[in-house]
Amino acid sequence: MGALPTDAALILVDVQMAFVEWERAGLRRNNPQAVANIARLLAAFRAAGLAVFHIRHASTSPDSALRPDRSGYRPMEEARERDGEPVVVKHVNSSFIGTDLEKRLIDGGHRTLVIAGITTNHCVETTTRMAGNLGFDARLVGDACYTFDRIGLDGEVRRAEAIHDMTLTNLNGEFASIVTSDAIVTALAEPAAS
Amino acid sequence: MGALPTDAALILVDVQMAFVEWERAGLRRNNPQAVANIARLLAAFRAAGLAVFHIRHASTSPDSALRPDRSGYRPMEEARERDGEPVVVKHVNSSFIGTDLEKRLIDGGHRTLVIAGITTNHCVETTTRMAGNLGFDARLVGDACYTFDRIGLDGEVRRAEAIHDMTLTNLNGEFASIVTSDAIVTALAEPAAS
Repeated sequence: MGALPTDAALILVDVQMAFVEWERAGLRRNNPQAVANIARLLAAFRAAGLAVFHIRHASTSPDSALRPDRSGYRPMEEARERDGEPVVVKHVNSSFIGTDLEKRLIDGGHRTLVIAGITTNHCVETTTRMAGNLGFDARLVGDACYTFDRIGLDGEVRRAEAIHDMTLTNLNGEFASIVTSDAIVTALAEPAAS
Repeated sequence: MGALPTDAALILVDVQMAFVEWERAGLRRNNPQAVANIARLLAAFRAAGLAVFHIRHASTSPDSALRPDRSGYRPMEEARERDGEPVVVKHVNSSFIGTDLEKRLIDGGHRTLVIAGITTNHCVETTTRMAGNLGFDARLVGDACYTFDRIGLDGEVRRAEAIHDMTLTNLNGEFASIVTSDAIVTALAEPAAS
């Protein structure tokens, strides 16, 4: 994909302990390498001196593991923010609703967004759909996202792999381009495009 | 599902001739009964005196059949607006981006949205995700939407039925409740809830 524009910002969506807890509780997920890829993306953006935005989901739902007073609200260690890196707290799936993320990105001159996180089909997908529709050049890092099995309307399980695949199929070319962690890390190591 | 609140508005997304033209050109779709169900929903909302919003996609893309100067921009006859029914013109997938739809709905006191149209996984899904995240009580009418086959990242066809099913699976209980045309038409014939 060539070099990445220097206006690029990494948007890490909901890389929080609740999803580790779900997995420990037995929920089936896909992409076992996703968090390692998120950590690689984060290291590469930091090394290149490019912007990183951490999106954190603060649920208002009584039963959610993502409530701010629960252990699941904490970021995973692999994605913990450093001093000075903005943390944007949201309450719904989209990182752009009820937050100042769009304004921060525009004010910072970030037109290119590299998006990764959890879950592929809910908060990542909704954020990516809105990013594209708001006019950003969105690049979704497919192998740095994951999701869980989910029950369909017919009561049968839809497997995480199929759900994840359909998100990438639906978004590709319509809202975002789908990229790999390798491509982004390689692009960040090349001389920057303007 | 019982009676429908009298604040309900029907949101018909992109029921435009371009999709008939795609079908005539040989693209495979699902839900052959969808437009008939859209017509039933429209008739039932009109008969109940409830609000209807027609969303129309005006593409800015050079090759799109949905450009305002093309035949595909026209509404399907089954969903043509009547005098006094608002038509909201949009340029991206979401009916809420670049339009005054949210303001119109709030000003009109419409908290309950019954959503149908084309295509399930793009403009309908994006509109429904945002409707839920903006705080509306969204009801997506699964059998009054359709979509087309689409190529996955691996170059293989994903069938319209599977794409449509995954949209409903992803949205159900997270952004919207999934309902049927029969349930809505029946609810509109019952004494209204407030």
